[in-house]
Amino acid sequence: METIVLKFGGSSVADNIKLNIVANKIIDFYNKKNKVIVVASAQGKTTDNLIKEAKELSYEPDKREMDMLLSTGEQISVSKLAILLNRLGYPAVSLTGWQAGIYTSEANQEAKIEYINTERMQKELDDGKIVLVAGFQGISNKKDITTLGRGGSDTTAVAIAAAIKADHCYIFSDVDGVYSTDPNKITDAKKITELSYTEMLDLSNEGAKVLHNRCVEVAQKYNVLIETGSTFNNNIGTQINNKIEESAVKSLVKNDNLFLITLKHDSYNADMLNKLYFILLENDITPMNIVNNSVSSFYVSFTIKTSDLGKFQELLENELSIYSSSFTNISRISLVGYGIMNNKEIMKKALEIFNINSVNIYSIELEECKLSIMTKEKVSDKLLEQLHHELIK
Amino acid sequence: METIVLKFGGSSVADNIKLNIVANKIIDFYNKKNKVIVVASAQGKTTDNLIKEAKELSYEPDKREMDMLLSTGEQISVSKLAILLNRLGYPAVSLTGWQAGIYTSEANQEAKIEYINTERMQKELDDGKIVLVAGFQGISNKKDITTLGRGGSDTTAVAIAAAIKADHCYIFSDVDGVYSTDPNKITDAKKITELSYTEMLDLSNEGAKVLHNRCVEVAQKYNVLIETGSTFNNNIGTQINNKIEESAVKSLVKNDNLFLITLKHDSYNADMLNKLYFILLENDITPMNIVNNSVSSFYVSFTIKTSDLGKFQELLENELSIYSSSFTNISRISLVGYGIMNNKEIMKKALEIFNINSVNIYSIELEECKLSIMTKEKVSDKLLEQLHHELIK
Repeated sequence: METIVLKFGGSSVADNIKLNIVANKIIDFYNKKNKVIVVASAQGKTTDNLIKEAKELSYEPDKREMDMLLSTGEQISVSKLAILLNRLGYPAVSLTGWQAGIYTSEANQEAKIEYINTERMQKELDDGKIVLVAGFQGISNKKDITTLGRGGSDTTAVAIAAAIKADHCYIFSDVDGVYSTDPNKITDAKKITELSYTEMLDLSNEGAKVLHNRCVEVAQKYNVLIETGSTFNNNIGTQINNKIEESAVKSLVKNDNLFLITLKHDSYNADMLNKLYFILLENDITPMNIVNNSVSSFYVSFTIKTSDLGKFQELLENELSIYSSSFTNISRISLVGYGIMNNKEIMKKALEIFNINSVNIYSIELEECKLSIMTKEKVSDKLLEQLHHELIK
Repeated sequence: METIVLKFGGSSVADNIKLNIVANKIIDFYNKKNKVIVVASAQGKTTDNLIKEAKELSYEPDKREMDMLLSTGEQISVSKLAILLNRLGYPAVSLTGWQAGIYTSEANQEAKIEYINTERMQKELDDGKIVLVAGFQGISNKKDITTLGRGGSDTTAVAIAAAIKADHCYIFSDVDGVYSTDPNKITDAKKITELSYTEMLDLSNEGAKVLHNRCVEVAQKYNVLIETGSTFNNNIGTQINNKIEESAVKSLVKNDNLFLITLKHDSYNADMLNKLYFILLENDITPMNIVNNSVSSFYVSFTIKTSDLGKFQELLENELSIYSSSFTNISRISLVGYGIMNNKEIMKKALEIFNINSVNIYSIELEECKLSIMTKEKVSDKLLEQLHHELIK
């Protein structure tokens, strides 16, 4: 008898038809004599709607109270799933985060799981029940409800798998696995069968949406093998494990949602960059790839997400009004795979393809498992297709 | 400094405009240097909608899971109220039933409050916070979420007032108090300033909707003085206390939602009534005013609520198909007030008015504080007006 953790995302439980699909998937695992724990997210747009309603009451809602409010979303999905499974004749019990023994830090809206007391889950499993756990939430030492931040349900699933020493941890979503590049754009895109934790982390940091990077970090720490899959088919997905792979490019990601910002000022003091950085962080903007070319005048460039652009422009009119500025929408192409840093052939081929297409490179970053290339113009799907064809075997 | 419990019903917190009205009412009490605990129900039709959604998944949803599902409704209202109060500059903290220390029996969907551990509420009050408690819910010894059944938020408020030894317990709703009869129908209707617990119990059992009878029972047991009021005005409402009143009719209630049922069968065994009663209770139908006139044949009549009629007709086609039956929609007029049983003048006057109007009485019940008259025809508002005019001073 194996212990299995299954995680279903919000779009997989969005309505009654989908709840039925999910229920049947759960029953399949249960019928194979498995002990089954299911972690579910809030249904469809529930969390977004609750946030919208709260913002109508307060521009900046109290974080503790937001967690009280948002945690109801997952409680609703797991109790509905339990109602459905019981009706189908399968014993099921739903648990909130605190009932499942998920203890977290006190940081409301971005709590970290500190400890899981598996006693209640274990008891229900021993009674033959399917255990449904509300994802994304826990309880602090003060007995306040906390939430783990967006994508937290993935983390809940992996942390439970680690605590309960599960034999398998499946993360189900709309897509069955991680692809070598966006299959909606590049027809050659192929599913990756295995990825190491580091490769997966690099991919999710670059915007791949299959897994949340926090859950990959937890999986790596506790050596939990993650298997991805689609809620809506039975294809084999991608396995994320700690195997050392041969040097190769596994996946190609393009991110067009970045702006390159340049700030200037006639004079320069050593503390100007510090102050700038501080103001940006205070306003929840994380500047990436900062380059400081200041000498006698201040001259700094960095990238921010397109979604932060509005906030940043407001700052330019207020706290940062001493600076003159320029903006460019840039593209960032990342090649991810073990050993890229030590494989000069990959880098050479990539640069060649940019050259052939007459696309000027603005900057290059090289890490153990990742090569990122930024350009000041939008990179075409044709260039992407060539990179994919030449570099991914 | 007084400790005050305020309870707001579902229609009082139905939308953001109403939440603002409620918040201002709470602030008024808080600003008068009171320690304030607020109990709130789920917003508007939330509970009904959740029940509907669950019934789409299962004809008879598991009760434990229904409590998991329904308890989210009150959690949403109190967290929204806390977000709003904090934004208005007033420190507020919302608590679920289990956080507020409300321990109940294990009977899901109809749990009884067994004990309240006031420690957390007391701590938050001592910190100067407005404490918002999710009504209608608690936690069992098994650490399962329970709900108290419909109208349970009133009971939560009164039980907290008893446990925390509150100086006042206000129950706010759409109407400011208990009236001598339905003010929408009888223009003479007047607000009652004081009622004893027994009188209020008789009234709520006869269908007056201002207070749930379970909350009145708890109030009586722990001697909690209840003050009713409207969320939407500042009129003085009705006080429910343990005073012994002089003999008088306080209120007049008409209930047209009853059916008189007669069942017949050619033969009669002594256990037929028992079996009938058992089948009705099994199907959640409570027959009232049973009269058994059986001798050699079975001949029994009783009343049921109009809302149970559909279910009852199904039974007649199945388990009860041996009986022939007849149905009559009846009216039930109740006069409520301390000492009615020992006041023959009241009874005489009432019967006289029915006579003058040529309305035949089907049956009369007399209790300590209540006289109920049933008729096989619908009682007119004119007759009600006369009763009110003659009997209520």
